[in-house]
Amino acid sequence: MAYELYYWPEIQGRGEFVRLALEEAGAKYVDVARRPAKAGGVPAMMRLLDGVEVKHPSFAPPFLRSGKLLIGQTANILLYLGARHALAPSNEAGRLWTHQLQLTIADLVGEVHDTHHPIASSLFYDDQRAEAQRRTADFLTSRMPKYLRYFEGVLARSGGRYLAGRQLTYADLSLFQVVEGLRYAFPKATARLEKKIPRVVDLHRAVAGRPRLRAYLGSERRIAFNELGIFRHYAELDG
Amino acid sequence: MAYELYYWPEIQGRGEFVRLALEEAGAKYVDVARRPAKAGGVPAMMRLLDGVEVKHPSFAPPFLRSGKLLIGQTANILLYLGARHALAPSNEAGRLWTHQLQLTIADLVGEVHDTHHPIASSLFYDDQRAEAQRRTADFLTSRMPKYLRYFEGVLARSGGRYLAGRQLTYADLSLFQVVEGLRYAFPKATARLEKKIPRVVDLHRAVAGRPRLRAYLGSERRIAFNELGIFRHYAELDG
Repeated sequence: MAYELYYWPEIQGRGEFVRLALEEAGAKYVDVARRPAKAGGVPAMMRLLDGVEVKHPSFAPPFLRSGKLLIGQTANILLYLGARHALAPSNEAGRLWTHQLQLTIADLVGEVHDTHHPIASSLFYDDQRAEAQRRTADFLTSRMPKYLRYFEGVLARSGGRYLAGRQLTYADLSLFQVVEGLRYAFPKATARLEKKIPRVVDLHRAVAGRPRLRAYLGSERRIAFNELGIFRHYAELDG
Repeated sequence: MAYELYYWPEIQGRGEFVRLALEEAGAKYVDVARRPAKAGGVPAMMRLLDGVEVKHPSFAPPFLRSGKLLIGQTANILLYLGARHALAPSNEAGRLWTHQLQLTIADLVGEVHDTHHPIASSLFYDDQRAEAQRRTADFLTSRMPKYLRYFEGVLARSGGRYLAGRQLTYADLSLFQVVEGLRYAFPKATARLEKKIPRVVDLHRAVAGRPRLRAYLGSERRIAFNELGIFRHYAELDG
């Protein structure tokens, strides 16, 4: 039975981390909210978010239906998919380590979001531009290098090309997506930093070259980056 | 063998979510960074954060040593402890659901932190007071009610007093801590909201009354809230 993924249809957003895992696994899935309203659409997603009969409602998309399970929170979905599709080590230590890395990526993604929305998600970017300038300056000079150098250090000691060693995990797919997003949002700052994190750049290249991923990235299923998502390009912010 | 918890010694912070689980479980643990430097202290913590010989370094505290495992990220530590100390359901659906709730609490905690640090963690509060006023206003009128009403809805359909039903989980301990923290940081706004979330208030009371937790909360092991931690009281922010 196909998985059902529920996420906002216009953006990559957090749903993209789940899509990459499903695509790399070659899993069958329906991207429900991207279908026409009569076959799903956003109304179908909202019913599962708000419905009083839903036993395990999510606070926000993405969430995934797998048989009787309805699973929310990006990292939690990946924990589940990682075990089912060999996208994480099967031993406890490796499973926990992969999840720890994913949660650190989630923290980074949250900080990326707040570069353009430091005051409130409910306001437009234009209503918080001055604050976004200040926050982004700190992000580009302090936080982004700290995170990416951390992952560079993890790769340096992993014993393989990937974060957890020689085996690809969902955390690698997510780090690939982070590099993609940072290149889109902050091309200048990211290009400068990439000179100092060769292992992260190599991991990005390795993931991009995997056959299923390459096919996905060239397909219409891959939504383009835009200024509604998490990774947004505002030239004035890219220092 | 006792667990070793590593976290900043002056604050509850994210480490407190781990402490509550260890205390409720009656587990033996050493709070390493709170010991004198010759028996641990912050230097011992920094060696595990930065040491090149550390195979699985954390991006930030807290992290937990359990035998050969070194586990970082608060929610990941709780995932591990939950399975070992019956602080989560043993079936897959319940385990994932509890973790999903914990990750949503983690998102809320991150937003609480950013009420007083909307621009940069590296700056003082006084250097971002104007932005903090704006962000906190949105948090108190929009985000905090949205999160706590979500948990109220989860409790309404759980079939028990606790988030996942009749059995206490680590997510309940964490929600207790969130209520404690919000009462400290924003007493006026929290008192108003509590009238609309009776089940959350009842859960807080139930957790506070558990014998091991009650003993812990009255002990010197419980660090007091203060203006170095995540939940800070600045009267000017409490609308």
